[in-house]
Amino acid sequence: MSIQYIFEILGTIVFAISGALAAGEKSEEQDWFGVTFIGFITAIGGGSLRDMLLGSYPLVWINDVNFMYAIFVGILIMRFFYSSLDRYRRELSLFDTMGIALFTVLGTEKALEFGVHPVIAAIMGMFSAVMGGVIRDTLTNTTPVIFRKEVYATACLAGATLFLILYRFEVDRTLNFIISGLLIIFIRVLAVYFKWSIPKFR
Amino acid sequence: MSIQYIFEILGTIVFAISGALAAGEKSEEQDWFGVTFIGFITAIGGGSLRDMLLGSYPLVWINDVNFMYAIFVGILIMRFFYSSLDRYRRELSLFDTMGIALFTVLGTEKALEFGVHPVIAAIMGMFSAVMGGVIRDTLTNTTPVIFRKEVYATACLAGATLFLILYRFEVDRTLNFIISGLLIIFIRVLAVYFKWSIPKFR
Amino acid sequence: MSIQYIFEILGTIVFAISGALAAGEKSEEQDWFGVTFIGFITAIGGGSLRDMLLGSYPLVWINDVNFMYAIFVGILIMRFFYSSLDRYRRELSLFDTMGIALFTVLGTEKALEFGVHPVIAAIMGMFSAVMGGVIRDTLTNTTPVIFRKEVYATACLAGATLFLILYRFEVDRTLNFIISGLLIIFIRVLAVYFKWSIPKFR
Repeated sequence: MSIQYIFEILGTIVFAISGALAAGEKSEEQDWFGVTFIGFITAIGGGSLRDMLLGSYPLVWINDVNFMYAIFVGILIMRFFYSSLDRYRRELSLFDTMGIALFTVLGTEKALEFGVHPVIAAIMGMFSAVMGGVIRDTLTNTTPVIFRKEVYATACLAGATLFLILYRFEVDRTLNFIISGLLIIFIRVLAVYFKWSIPKFR
Repeated sequence: MSIQYIFEILGTIVFAISGALAAGEKSEEQDWFGVTFIGFITAIGGGSLRDMLLGSYPLVWINDVNFMYAIFVGILIMRFFYSSLDRYRRELSLFDTMGIALFTVLGTEKALEFGVHPVIAAIMGMFSAVMGGVIRDTLTNTTPVIFRKEVYATACLAGATLFLILYRFEVDRTLNFIISGLLIIFIRVLAVYFKWSIPKFR
Repeated sequence: MSIQYIFEILGTIVFAISGALAAGEKSEEQDWFGVTFIGFITAIGGGSLRDMLLGSYPLVWINDVNFMYAIFVGILIMRFFYSSLDRYRRELSLFDTMGIALFTVLGTEKALEFGVHPVIAAIMGMFSAVMGGVIRDTLTNTTPVIFRKEVYATACLAGATLFLILYRFEVDRTLNFIISGLLIIFIRVLAVYFKWSIPKFR
């Protein structure tokens, strides 16, 4: 069991928690099925879209049922620690940030392996990280997270770009994952703290 | 022409009717194109998503134009019997229930043929049945049917699970289709009658 | 560099502009990322959906980064000429009309090359033209353009049908593109001018 695999499973748990949290924010009335479905979509949506765009079959979670179990674990964690988790909402958003950092670098690398142009690889990395949340928000009739939050998808694009540069200079893979992932987390944390936002179009 | 094919065509007609009915509920102002498009999306959305996730090409309706004709037949039935159909709205929802029962068992079996884990096969069966309605509701800015209705997608999951168990015990295929499909219809009818709902997450 | 390629790139620029324009209509508050993302989705959404339904891999824009550059060019044009462009909103919608005309005929021909039935090819042509806008509208919680505008997707279906008839009679390809494309533009212009609409379903 490689370190990458462990991280992918952990990222899936984290995304399922973050999806279930978003479902709870939307409505207190959500039932078990609704919350599980939303956690599931958040966790697998971005990677599935990336793979369907690249034509990379079979999809990771369809080929390996452990990703489903990871989602169920995330939902159960969410359920049993909800009242304690709810108080630490701000701290918890760090989970989401770690999730998008991880999925961005994994997604960018996967796209590169398909031989696409680096610009496309960066977009695929960003898609892996944010499109699960976008699909979740669309299904629940919320303004998608990427139009709402401080510097969010842009942080992913920055991390993906750094990953591509270090990749070009043949930096060690694990080191590259750590540095590029940390850049995303760093930008997001600063963006939330200083309330950064992207310049208006007009 | 196999019995399965006849059922698939009938299921498509039923789903197109149920989609057009939902379009009418949403707005009395819908034009011919809008209603046809919504009926079309409802009928082919779930199966298309399942096949795109599995990488099962060509998609059924793209390979066989009869599914398009089935949709047009459904829309025309809807148009010419609208006033009479409208009075039997409640009875009509039984059509939708038969549609989801049929699509669940067909979808579950198709996923199994791709060699996926039974848990994934059950999800694919449920997707085949409900995601057409979910895409329809998203396009019309309605809360998706799976978050709205009494025990709906969960009934599909129950039927898919029964199908998988009987499949494991090598029960005759036609018999399995009938028993598992009837379970879905049975749960849905009881859920509507007794106003069952899934337990709240909190 | 074939004439078709030049037209595809121009169509992508036009669609990115029309997408960014729609983003601006929705909200004055859009940031650079939001507008670029919406322009991007509008430009590549329809063709991507068509290719994913047909199983035509690799997707055009993933294989050729020039389409990304075309989108960036469209966004920049939009930015620097916004105040002048805004006054000519009505004239500008002609760009969108040229875009859907072009994408319809290109999409219909591409689907035909996959050996699908002409009815399916017409639907794929229409999807290429309008689904980018539909996805954009869904993400921004707007009623999809095809349910909103005067004769829009229907004009694409008419143009695709004419293309298929002329194709059957082996009319010269370029001539067919021009005639079928002009039919779409012609119908759209008349529909806007005379406020045509599709008959109500009831």
